[in-house]
Amino acid sequence: MNLGKITAKTASLDPGREALVDVPNDRRISYGDLDERIRRLANALRSDLGLAKGNRVAILSKNCIQYMEVFYGVARCGLIALPLNWRLSEAELVRLLQDGEPAVFIVSAEYRELAARLQGQIDVQKLIIFADDPEDDYERLLASASPEEPSSSATVTGDDPVLILYTGGTTGLSKGALHTHHSLYMGMINQTVAERIVPTDVYMLTGQMFHIPVALAMNYMAHGCPVVLINFEAQLALEVIQRERVSAFLGITTMINWMMAVEGFQEYDLSSLRNFQYGGGPMPRSVVEAAMAAFPCTLIQGYGQTEGMTMTFLSQEDHQDALAGVHPERLSSCGRPGFVTEVQVVDPEGQPVPRDGQTPGEIIVCSEANMVGYWRRPELTAETLRDGWLWTGDIAVWDEDGYVFIVDRAKDMIISGGENIYSTQVEAAIHQHPAVLESAVFGVPDDTWGEAVKAVVVLKPGQEASAADIIEVASQHLASYQKPKSVDFVEALPKAPTGKILKRELRDPYWQVEERSV
Amino acid sequence: MNLGKITAKTASLDPGREALVDVPNDRRISYGDLDERIRRLANALRSDLGLAKGNRVAILSKNCIQYMEVFYGVARCGLIALPLNWRLSEAELVRLLQDGEPAVFIVSAEYRELAARLQGQIDVQKLIIFADDPEDDYERLLASASPEEPSSSATVTGDDPVLILYTGGTTGLSKGALHTHHSLYMGMINQTVAERIVPTDVYMLTGQMFHIPVALAMNYMAHGCPVVLINFEAQLALEVIQRERVSAFLGITTMINWMMAVEGFQEYDLSSLRNFQYGGGPMPRSVVEAAMAAFPCTLIQGYGQTEGMTMTFLSQEDHQDALAGVHPERLSSCGRPGFVTEVQVVDPEGQPVPRDGQTPGEIIVCSEANMVGYWRRPELTAETLRDGWLWTGDIAVWDEDGYVFIVDRAKDMIISGGENIYSTQVEAAIHQHPAVLESAVFGVPDDTWGEAVKAVVVLKPGQEASAADIIEVASQHLASYQKPKSVDFVEALPKAPTGKILKRELRDPYWQVEERSV
Repeated sequence: MNLGKITAKTASLDPGREALVDVPNDRRISYGDLDERIRRLANALRSDLGLAKGNRVAILSKNCIQYMEVFYGVARCGLIALPLNWRLSEAELVRLLQDGEPAVFIVSAEYRELAARLQGQIDVQKLIIFADDPEDDYERLLASASPEEPSSSATVTGDDPVLILYTGGTTGLSKGALHTHHSLYMGMINQTVAERIVPTDVYMLTGQMFHIPVALAMNYMAHGCPVVLINFEAQLALEVIQRERVSAFLGITTMINWMMAVEGFQEYDLSSLRNFQYGGGPMPRSVVEAAMAAFPCTLIQGYGQTEGMTMTFLSQEDHQDALAGVHPERLSSCGRPGFVTEVQVVDPEGQPVPRDGQTPGEIIVCSEANMVGYWRRPELTAETLRDGWLWTGDIAVWDEDGYVFIVDRAKDMIISGGENIYSTQVEAAIHQHPAVLESAVFGVPDDTWGEAVKAVVVLKPGQEASAADIIEVASQHLASYQKPKSVDFVEALPKAPTGKILKRELRDPYWQVEERSV
Repeated sequence: MNLGKITAKTASLDPGREALVDVPNDRRISYGDLDERIRRLANALRSDLGLAKGNRVAILSKNCIQYMEVFYGVARCGLIALPLNWRLSEAELVRLLQDGEPAVFIVSAEYRELAARLQGQIDVQKLIIFADDPEDDYERLLASASPEEPSSSATVTGDDPVLILYTGGTTGLSKGALHTHHSLYMGMINQTVAERIVPTDVYMLTGQMFHIPVALAMNYMAHGCPVVLINFEAQLALEVIQRERVSAFLGITTMINWMMAVEGFQEYDLSSLRNFQYGGGPMPRSVVEAAMAAFPCTLIQGYGQTEGMTMTFLSQEDHQDALAGVHPERLSSCGRPGFVTEVQVVDPEGQPVPRDGQTPGEIIVCSEANMVGYWRRPELTAETLRDGWLWTGDIAVWDEDGYVFIVDRAKDMIISGGENIYSTQVEAAIHQHPAVLESAVFGVPDDTWGEAVKAVVVLKPGQEASAADIIEVASQHLASYQKPKSVDFVEALPKAPTGKILKRELRDPYWQVEERSV
């Protein structure tokens, strides 16, 4: 098992088949050409630059073909990829680069100046800039390297580390989840089974490539499918689905909402769609119904973490059943364990909590798709991976059939007057108001109750509602202590590049918490 | 990865779901009950009988629920299953048991006397008879064992051996292909992707459980599907598909032919079928067309060996394309590599032969689904597994897109007048005569040419043809030197329990070859 050889099979069998469609840079590349460039890059890194097995190669770029080449080229020859989130501050990037200690740092021209500044603060053997130009560092390196299969590719085993993904920037100090060829591959198997991938699929990658969903795109490539790269924007996504005959993609709830809100949505030809997966939390029932009516395909929901890839799925049949009135409440569930995965919801001693749909516990996951640990964080690794189980920090209840309902991130729980309040429950209630597009609920300091429930709401375009309206509707679905005490209206919520709402940015000003010095 | 825990997930999530339908013995068992019996068996073997990790457990029985329990129970606690072909001679069974050295021998009541005789000739710690009777050895063993999860199950890793499948009885001295939990699991991944398994499937196991296709049934169980066990008979198979709402099965060409020939075929409700896989050689185009019209589902073809499970597949789309006139010749191909598999067609030095559809070479396979070796046959293992590649002994050509066309088993090639003649090509030509149901072509001694091409033919019921008719039709599709020199007509061809034609039994009398002393 060498993930870096994923492109080799299709390059051999169907060399002319389209591998990547790079929409932002208006480029396309076939499997045959891509695989040759990957071999050249691997040879350049190991033979020409002299890197040793296990050395790290960092990359800083928006989505593009070269980014995917770096993933595969690095994997092909036994190195470790270290993709960086370009939204991080310079100080945080320095910290990650000092932690990951890459031997080589590959950067798109857009970040040339930033990279030069970073280079002054870290110890990196070589900085390589690419600019879609035959004379750039990267192209010259490839041109002078051998196109043969690198001899190092045969020495790679499934247990070799291949990827460090930094995570946790929104909830605490970043740490690098370390994956091997095997762990990523097993995560792909989970996805293959859940998404029911077929070789005729065309996949659109909606997320940024420094996040775990990039493994989904690599998985479609393992099936010989073309992958379309975009920087997500709702109208663009619809245009690309129509033009490239996209059959599958991953969308967080907000993306789906925005796509359906695009003017003239009905006019787009979306008939190529076969299935899409949504994540980042359950979709409100009204949105699922709207999506199933609007998109001519099946839906699944996935729940995962960088540490374990996608761990549970709400299946195609679960969605159909729920809309037909069989266990409709399961639309609020993130489903059941993936094909290669075991899941438990447990108390702090690791004993499963009752499957009563009421008793909260922590989600723990046993899977060969789990990371092997945090990079250079043995204590944190030992806390998180115990006896083969990944402790996710996510709080859930589960029902008698093992469907998992996430109630909150462990750290996001609000405690008001001694009662635990899970913000997702409050958000779900707020979404019962038809004018609500998005919401974020969190706790703010309160002299009487310790914490008070605050909601920040984005209304749908052209719609109106008052704070009192929102609280009244939400109150119909909540216990009195759970209802929001205050509601603020904003134009947009702060979000990570994945689309995940950065609740911390909303909450922290109220708490005047001491930000880590970045 | 512990294959013995395949039933545990569904037992936990859907304990009442049907796991096995045992048609021959008219019994059914749920995942919850099955998993408990598996845990009891594992505890009985390790704790009560004191077996050590890696000990072998032999089983001799026709298809039944207990057989599946033995597979899983043995795997669950780190032992190795050694299933025996009940069609073998007593002397051959003794040889295999001496080779495999099982500590325990589990036998259905049908083979009680045979087992007693065998026990006199081998050194086995315990013989366990089962008879679907609460007072039989097996049930008493289970009743007295703990139903808890065996402590040994957590010590099993993917690299532990789990199954010895004896193979080669039709072409030479039997040898035991040794599979690990991981190799079988990776073979299942190949099948999962190729068959596009969904959790709503119902699988019918048409083969006997001492053969590699049993892993397909276990795979459907890994997806939580019910598996229906039968001893194949065409009319029964149709009745069972209708009654149990079977969605998938594996049928060799002959089975499909016989099913379509059942009187009143049109009256059966086969609407539950989603896909079936055929193997044991390509189906003639006329049969594929008839099958696609007769069965309301997709078809795939698989090619495999006990040593590597299913290695190549001709996909659903390949069939549809071929019938639509796109590469119709590929209906004679066994397709392209499975998801986890690499395939090459090579010359004796291991160099790929040209992809010209003409140059024969040997099929070699690199896959984590390959066996890890032959049991206690290091020399044969070294000959067969070289640098991670399995040398199959099968001769094929491949086309420019990597589609593999098997021309013959290496040992079945006919050499006549210095020309290589591949019997499958001759058989395909013979099948152009509409009266031909089955055929077997092989070489017989010829003073002038070294070998002469002989055909043995079974005609369709109620149809007639002469030897001259057959030769004339075949000649239209063959070079002169390839056409049969003689044709014999028989009522039936000798076959292995899998349905594979035992060409050796037809050919050997002509060659008076020295049979091994069994």
